[in-house]
Amino acid sequence: MPLKSYISYSTESNFPLENLPYGVFSTKNDPIHRIGVAIGEKVLDLKNSKNIFDQPLYEIFQQSSLHSLMASSKDTWSLARKLIQSYLSIENVENLEKAVFWDQNEVIMHLPVTIGDFTDFFSSYYHALRCGMLLNPLKPLGENWKNMPVCYHSRSSTINVSGKPVVRPNGQYLVDKKVTFGPTKMLDYELEVAFFVGGTLNSPAEPIPVSKASEYIFGMVLLNDWSARDIQMWESHFLGPFLSKNFATTISPWIVTMEALEDFKTDNFKQEHTPLEYLLHENKFNFDIHLSANICYPGSQQNYTICETNFKYLYWTPLQQIAHHTVNGCTLKPGDLLSSGTVSGPKDEECGCLYEKTNGGKNPIELGDRKLTFFEDGDTVILSGFCQGDGYRIGFGCCSNTIVNRV
Amino acid sequence: MPLKSYISYSTESNFPLENLPYGVFSTKNDPIHRIGVAIGEKVLDLKNSKNIFDQPLYEIFQQSSLHSLMASSKDTWSLARKLIQSYLSIENVENLEKAVFWDQNEVIMHLPVTIGDFTDFFSSYYHALRCGMLLNPLKPLGENWKNMPVCYHSRSSTINVSGKPVVRPNGQYLVDKKVTFGPTKMLDYELEVAFFVGGTLNSPAEPIPVSKASEYIFGMVLLNDWSARDIQMWESHFLGPFLSKNFATTISPWIVTMEALEDFKTDNFKQEHTPLEYLLHENKFNFDIHLSANICYPGSQQNYTICETNFKYLYWTPLQQIAHHTVNGCTLKPGDLLSSGTVSGPKDEECGCLYEKTNGGKNPIELGDRKLTFFEDGDTVILSGFCQGDGYRIGFGCCSNTIVNRV
Repeated sequence: MPLKSYISYSTESNFPLENLPYGVFSTKNDPIHRIGVAIGEKVLDLKNSKNIFDQPLYEIFQQSSLHSLMASSKDTWSLARKLIQSYLSIENVENLEKAVFWDQNEVIMHLPVTIGDFTDFFSSYYHALRCGMLLNPLKPLGENWKNMPVCYHSRSSTINVSGKPVVRPNGQYLVDKKVTFGPTKMLDYELEVAFFVGGTLNSPAEPIPVSKASEYIFGMVLLNDWSARDIQMWESHFLGPFLSKNFATTISPWIVTMEALEDFKTDNFKQEHTPLEYLLHENKFNFDIHLSANICYPGSQQNYTICETNFKYLYWTPLQQIAHHTVNGCTLKPGDLLSSGTVSGPKDEECGCLYEKTNGGKNPIELGDRKLTFFEDGDTVILSGFCQGDGYRIGFGCCSNTIVNRV
Repeated sequence: MPLKSYISYSTESNFPLENLPYGVFSTKNDPIHRIGVAIGEKVLDLKNSKNIFDQPLYEIFQQSSLHSLMASSKDTWSLARKLIQSYLSIENVENLEKAVFWDQNEVIMHLPVTIGDFTDFFSSYYHALRCGMLLNPLKPLGENWKNMPVCYHSRSSTINVSGKPVVRPNGQYLVDKKVTFGPTKMLDYELEVAFFVGGTLNSPAEPIPVSKASEYIFGMVLLNDWSARDIQMWESHFLGPFLSKNFATTISPWIVTMEALEDFKTDNFKQEHTPLEYLLHENKFNFDIHLSANICYPGSQQNYTICETNFKYLYWTPLQQIAHHTVNGCTLKPGDLLSSGTVSGPKDEECGCLYEKTNGGKNPIELGDRKLTFFEDGDTVILSGFCQGDGYRIGFGCCSNTIVNRV
């Protein structure tokens, strides 16, 4: 039986009482950034609502970012969730008088925290395989790929929350083998799911073992790793992608906590090749999250679905990602963001980016009377995701941007 | 004629009145982080000295980091320098009563700012060429290399100032083609020079043209980009280096300002291949900075010099690096760090890392009775750098770490 709140919502709502994702918002008449929790179509204002928390939680929820909460322990996260769930529960309807609610469509969402370092993985087997087939059909997967969760450092300064237009980037690429400069002609998305690091920081130079890694995951968001494929192919030789990625990255504004996702754990991806011991774990840490990408554009009659996939297709788990990331002593900090890489599944409709889906741009997708290879100005790309419970959903909301030309 | 201060120092001092580099320090009895400027063997405490600044500079120098100063404009930097230079000048010896000085060897140095994003370039022609020869002798330089300042995102969280021991990292690498886990056997340094971004942030999505880029460079430090070559070779396929770099990066604690370096401008490296227009500039923005790396170890009779090179060997200038970095709209922020990559020159003694110098580990360096290929535990590696003026030096001080084993 789903839980019941005095705030009403449908069974298809992203944000029932079972979810309670955190975000940072402001309102038109009060520009102060503050922490809220999404419930139905409302936001519970955790700074201004009365009688939810005692110290130290009270102080944590007076902050303008989620950093203090992220830097707390798993027990603190659990307690906060319990108190908010009880506060919003139908039995405690008298809280309506003490609570401050906003409509989600009237608030302005902000980055939930100042993001420290941003690491992007490449953890989907099907994505790695399909991209590899396009680039090197005789040996699509690098030898290292099944031995470690391959990843790279990406750029924090250009991460924004859903909504901000994405400006088509200029850059260098080859046209008929000639080096050319101009707006990318191969603007692509990547459907990813990222998690925020939380918990008490590992001591410098101390690896986090795979068995303890779950203590350091605060919660998850959708992430669109915008990519310019022509720039990427030309620049990546030797040190990997740079300008082809760091012009824009978008996350969904509500962080779904690991506790909300607990009931949606599913079997880990079967790893054909046994990795080294520091990467081994038996416990389930994979999640059944339905993911989709949609597009609409000026004049389109509808939203077209261009991808339907699932988080569970990831070959490497977040626990393995953390164990690998810190095995050399690299310090993780609360507010760091680690992303999955494009989440693709085995089927054609499960390709999480256009490069894969269109076979490197060769096979356009038919959308009514439009043929889509890469994005055009005016296109709006919407990522969404949810876990289906029994009579309720744990939703991520959406991550949406419209592409504009540089003026 | 060199300038003269009432603080005395030798003509070989790193920190004469012409230099005035900024750092953040604390003292044994006062753990508050505060801004200082190095003069001779002293630190002028800019928070606690009286009568140097009016507002708004006074407030800027009350901060615990250099962020506010970095986020100011070039004119503000210039004014601050002028006031400090005058304050320390021999004509104003009466300031001795109002000034607070510390001995450099009694202060504890800290990171000068919370570093946002860290970008590492690969801008030395000789380094790129020698590494390329080792990896792919038929085509040592990638086709993109002469068309753009190739670079990648690196890790901010593990940057420290000189002094902190470097823990030998564990990781994966191949031994006789077998995937193995353990402490790196190929621990290397990279002699680099990095600059801190300053000035008023570019608006999101607005490129900084090469003609304006100098307004966004606050000052320079030495940087040791510690590297584990065995881990690097195994992990880098597809997305570039990660764990082989992010276990430790060290910077020298004193930031030498661009104004102090102005007199040491020298011709730009001649670019045989004309790059695209957004990378072209005629004005000199290369610097004659002598750089060296030394090693000592338990039982060594002396410090051995393992590299003597010069910043002027960089093929790409910092202006080109900034223009490239932002041409796609990527946002730079005050406190971001951009590093040169290994600075190597044409001669054998000018190799800025052991991988190059020892020809991939094949030709050890003879140090008295020791043969050095890669570093051993207990080795201390010291980078230093200076510009030679007429009767004075603009020094960077040093960047020194001892390697220890993980306990």
